[in-house]
Amino acid sequence: MRIEELNWMDVEEYLKHDDRLILVVGACEQHGYLSLLSDVKIPLALADAVSKQIGILVAPPINFGSSPYFLTYPGTLSLRLSTLMDAVEDIIRSAYGQGFKRILVLNGHGGNSGLKARLVELSNLLPELKVQWYAWWMAHSVETIAIQHEIKPSHANWLEAFPFTIVSDLPVGQKTPPQVPSEILDAKTAREVYGDGSFGGKYQVSDTIMQEVFDASLQDILQLLKFD
Amino acid sequence: MRIEELNWMDVEEYLKHDDRLILVVGACEQHGYLSLLSDVKIPLALADAVSKQIGILVAPPINFGSSPYFLTYPGTLSLRLSTLMDAVEDIIRSAYGQGFKRILVLNGHGGNSGLKARLVELSNLLPELKVQWYAWWMAHSVETIAIQHEIKPSHANWLEAFPFTIVSDLPVGQKTPPQVPSEILDAKTAREVYGDGSFGGKYQVSDTIMQEVFDASLQDILQLLKFD
Amino acid sequence: MRIEELNWMDVEEYLKHDDRLILVVGACEQHGYLSLLSDVKIPLALADAVSKQIGILVAPPINFGSSPYFLTYPGTLSLRLSTLMDAVEDIIRSAYGQGFKRILVLNGHGGNSGLKARLVELSNLLPELKVQWYAWWMAHSVETIAIQHEIKPSHANWLEAFPFTIVSDLPVGQKTPPQVPSEILDAKTAREVYGDGSFGGKYQVSDTIMQEVFDASLQDILQLLKFD
Amino acid sequence: MRIEELNWMDVEEYLKHDDRLILVVGACEQHGYLSLLSDVKIPLALADAVSKQIGILVAPPINFGSSPYFLTYPGTLSLRLSTLMDAVEDIIRSAYGQGFKRILVLNGHGGNSGLKARLVELSNLLPELKVQWYAWWMAHSVETIAIQHEIKPSHANWLEAFPFTIVSDLPVGQKTPPQVPSEILDAKTAREVYGDGSFGGKYQVSDTIMQEVFDASLQDILQLLKFD
Amino acid sequence: MRIEELNWMDVEEYLKHDDRLILVVGACEQHGYLSLLSDVKIPLALADAVSKQIGILVAPPINFGSSPYFLTYPGTLSLRLSTLMDAVEDIIRSAYGQGFKRILVLNGHGGNSGLKARLVELSNLLPELKVQWYAWWMAHSVETIAIQHEIKPSHANWLEAFPFTIVSDLPVGQKTPPQVPSEILDAKTAREVYGDGSFGGKYQVSDTIMQEVFDASLQDILQLLKFD
Amino acid sequence: MRIEELNWMDVEEYLKHDDRLILVVGACEQHGYLSLLSDVKIPLALADAVSKQIGILVAPPINFGSSPYFLTYPGTLSLRLSTLMDAVEDIIRSAYGQGFKRILVLNGHGGNSGLKARLVELSNLLPELKVQWYAWWMAHSVETIAIQHEIKPSHANWLEAFPFTIVSDLPVGQKTPPQVPSEILDAKTAREVYGDGSFGGKYQVSDTIMQEVFDASLQDILQLLKFD
Repeated sequence: MRIEELNWMDVEEYLKHDDRLILVVGACEQHGYLSLLSDVKIPLALADAVSKQIGILVAPPINFGSSPYFLTYPGTLSLRLSTLMDAVEDIIRSAYGQGFKRILVLNGHGGNSGLKARLVELSNLLPELKVQWYAWWMAHSVETIAIQHEIKPSHANWLEAFPFTIVSDLPVGQKTPPQVPSEILDAKTAREVYGDGSFGGKYQVSDTIMQEVFDASLQDILQLLKFD
Repeated sequence: MRIEELNWMDVEEYLKHDDRLILVVGACEQHGYLSLLSDVKIPLALADAVSKQIGILVAPPINFGSSPYFLTYPGTLSLRLSTLMDAVEDIIRSAYGQGFKRILVLNGHGGNSGLKARLVELSNLLPELKVQWYAWWMAHSVETIAIQHEIKPSHANWLEAFPFTIVSDLPVGQKTPPQVPSEILDAKTAREVYGDGSFGGKYQVSDTIMQEVFDASLQDILQLLKFD
Repeated sequence: MRIEELNWMDVEEYLKHDDRLILVVGACEQHGYLSLLSDVKIPLALADAVSKQIGILVAPPINFGSSPYFLTYPGTLSLRLSTLMDAVEDIIRSAYGQGFKRILVLNGHGGNSGLKARLVELSNLLPELKVQWYAWWMAHSVETIAIQHEIKPSHANWLEAFPFTIVSDLPVGQKTPPQVPSEILDAKTAREVYGDGSFGGKYQVSDTIMQEVFDASLQDILQLLKFD
Repeated sequence: MRIEELNWMDVEEYLKHDDRLILVVGACEQHGYLSLLSDVKIPLALADAVSKQIGILVAPPINFGSSPYFLTYPGTLSLRLSTLMDAVEDIIRSAYGQGFKRILVLNGHGGNSGLKARLVELSNLLPELKVQWYAWWMAHSVETIAIQHEIKPSHANWLEAFPFTIVSDLPVGQKTPPQVPSEILDAKTAREVYGDGSFGGKYQVSDTIMQEVFDASLQDILQLLKFD
Repeated sequence: MRIEELNWMDVEEYLKHDDRLILVVGACEQHGYLSLLSDVKIPLALADAVSKQIGILVAPPINFGSSPYFLTYPGTLSLRLSTLMDAVEDIIRSAYGQGFKRILVLNGHGGNSGLKARLVELSNLLPELKVQWYAWWMAHSVETIAIQHEIKPSHANWLEAFPFTIVSDLPVGQKTPPQVPSEILDAKTAREVYGDGSFGGKYQVSDTIMQEVFDASLQDILQLLKFD
Repeated sequence: MRIEELNWMDVEEYLKHDDRLILVVGACEQHGYLSLLSDVKIPLALADAVSKQIGILVAPPINFGSSPYFLTYPGTLSLRLSTLMDAVEDIIRSAYGQGFKRILVLNGHGGNSGLKARLVELSNLLPELKVQWYAWWMAHSVETIAIQHEIKPSHANWLEAFPFTIVSDLPVGQKTPPQVPSEILDAKTAREVYGDGSFGGKYQVSDTIMQEVFDASLQDILQLLKFD
């Protein structure tokens, strides 16, 4: 269940028998034809599904991530990485002070990976804190599915085209991945390079494959939540 | 409509005829028997209602605010004010760079009012930016309704008990407002002072009154969105 | 007595029987025809008067506050709110480390109210710290006097026209309060809106009323200094 | 004249024929038997004297400096150097935006010298800004006087014992300068080393010598204010 | 050639015909039996080799990176990621102001990858800046070599055992990679998990293979330096 | 010996019998005809020489300092003072956590002296930390040598012309020190004032004198390392 469905007495009750919390960190950024909030919607859907199974508490999502390279795409709302690190630190310190000692950060966005440095710094400061990190699209399990079906996972292609992230018709067929001149792209160049925003490959695959991906991630998360 | 229901092409289209954006800033903090996310749910409901009427774009909410005094109430997840100011600055700079020049910050939480300083600082730096600020519970229109019905508006009392923020049975009757020793309360003292978290007064009033409050705020917001 | 009249041995002596300190936080900003330092002079005069009565120690004032909206008025010297918060934190930490556990922040300027967030954050960190906050012009007691005399208190009008803040002849009569387009004004717009800088109402009232206001604030402060 | 004696119209008038400003940066820290605010009082007295002669504008002083080594001496209220740098930057940016292009920072405290780095950084950013820095006790002119009279200038000895910084009887005679184990002293060690707080030498010299020192500094400042 | 072998006139001369600079960012952290500065030595050796071939300028290395998880291993000296980001920004701004427009960041350490966010943020701010990023051990070319020889590249194993990083005898044979409980390890847990510091696999391979790795990286860098 | 020649086991061994560390802080800035890295090379040479005698551990140097006034001289790569302070704090905290309690900061650059404030702040926070600071060119011992030989020490003149900092032919004779308009020079003015970058005086003296200077510094450092 999500914190928004509860009052503080409910959370106090929860803390008597559990000290785990899921924190979703996403992004509000261009995803081609998909929802600008795909990077929140996907990990949040996973968190909800997990919560339904084992009753773990889910914090409200951080709806913004580090997406400076996409700022030329309207609707992309990006935090400096330093701001994002501060926000995550503040939230974890809040929860830790109330008794949450094991926190799973469910990340939905590649640009947020610098967060891991702050999470380690914080783990050095807060003695009992245990943090797990899960970036679903980089999981071994998801990669395996992609290989099986011979489809390449990438930003704003089929991989993120879940029923709940599709907000418009998707192009048929696939896009040739563009030539990327550098790992460090300013927002102007990024738009020239990526055009519609997809990094290439198929725009959509069958619902069955998407469910496979979702289920595989779900199992990974259940495993991580054991914190052993 | 909310940004999450759109892709970037939709937002680009929107910007051809409008340059306004609503940004909801809330808090994840104890609200007595009400939802921990009441301070997001209320302004977001207002934003959605306004958007339904005039089609204005609504950014994803900032789900966390400055609530250091409630950190002893489980489920309260607070940002340092400096972090919150940075986050709002980053988001507004992102939007401004894409053509959003008029931004209504729909604030749901009293502890966030320090944000106004940063918004002015930012308005001095970004030449065409126009910012409006609305804190619904402090509006003249809402105060008038409260006076009419002889009910005192306060934190986590009837004023915030909308159908969509109620997550448990509410106590019958009313609470005597506690004696508050200082405007500056540390979280330990705050919990001793406020007990169940409500600041006192009636826990609930009729749906009709709540609708009056909601509608009055709605009219205020529509007025502010004229930016004149 | 003020710290500037003492040496460190005197303060060490003081700490043997008292642990209270008054910290004046003001602003250096336009006040229409009044002194640019009115927001320091008024709370400092109150602090001096209180100190005369009960011997409490008064720290040197922070002569600058958060006034970004008045930066187009020459002589306004403003700190970013984040800088001001850091300064107040540093000063309170300094005093706390020496044994000052109860601190009254005597604020002279509305734009500084974001400081309260930092004061709470600090109270959570420093176990024995007790902080009181007083903004004289917002006090119930002062409001009562204004209502009695049917005069509206506002920025740079009669309310701040004490004998010691008047530095030039004041206009006779009163000013119609201007139409204010938003709570968030950039400095350029603010100057267009406010012209001479007063927010409207009478420019001056009798010395008797001013003394009433001063005395009422004085009593409030004496009460707050009991820290109960 | 000081900004506090003026309103904004006066400053606007001043800016029509002059673009210089004196900013006093001091400290609130132990000075042995002398006033805790000596490091503000001395440069402010110099500023006032200069202003009397040539009518230059004097900003309100920054009453706090970087004095971490003296925090064990009650009454020492210290800013982190980073906070002090931010404060000075904010004040200079405020003034610069209004037309002050030549600013003399009149420093009263040795611990503040790190400020110079920020002043250069700022000078690189603000094209027309010219900044002068004066630390009176390090001036060649003052050193010359000390040598003439065979007295060693040092912290909290005769050098700072002006009529207006003396707040208690001063010891007769002189103090043997203590053995200092390191340039970097934590506050606990500093108090063990310095005892009464003076760095040694004579506690007081004749008023005539003090006047010589004052006058020499005054001439230096007048020279620097030519900004050539 | 390295900046340290030049004076400023030489660099001015260089800028007349080239605007490229290599900046090495490394770490000072445990590398098992290898040098604590391996993450600087390797990219610096590559930079020197490249410079020998095409005469490109090499800045002094940043000798410290983000290694919070290894702080329990003596000799690990780590920067907070935020500090490292600030340092890289300052250095690039310095160079950019002098005419360096194309900068290759030669990264030697996995924990530094959060830097990329700041590099993009900076690229958005500095119009003509082009940045390339190279992390040699993650290069496709190096991976290919590892696969050919059926050896797994990892932290502090053979992959980093170049002649110039070996500072003591290396264990014979190989280490079973430890079970890692989380991607986010505090420093205490990390030491329990990693023991001697190597992440497992062979401790050393033949000089021929190491030369292959080095040469492959060299070719990659030469390619990136074309900035097309 | 330097940390780069060791692995972590070696440092662990060292910590069993010693808790001292030398940290070199320099600058990458114009030195006239001398190496841009002179301010690192000199203190590092001293550290190496000392280490050879008494086996003390030397950390990798911080290759950049605060040199905003020289940013117009190509090859000058400067950190904001705030960044430099953060970097030094992070490094000292890292070392302190591993058992290094006595740290000698060997500074090579005048612009870095603001660092001392942070070192004191840090000493107040870390109970057992003892820090020494040495700026070789300001040492009494070095001044004595200069007086003996009737040569004036200054930036980028003979004083820094060691065999290992000379990277090109030096001008014969000496330079008349330029008229310096202010202690606070922006980079544009600084280049106009200083021309070739030297602050004036002889460009070079005999190797014998340079050795005297080096040896005198060496003795000073050996003395400081006793930490008594």
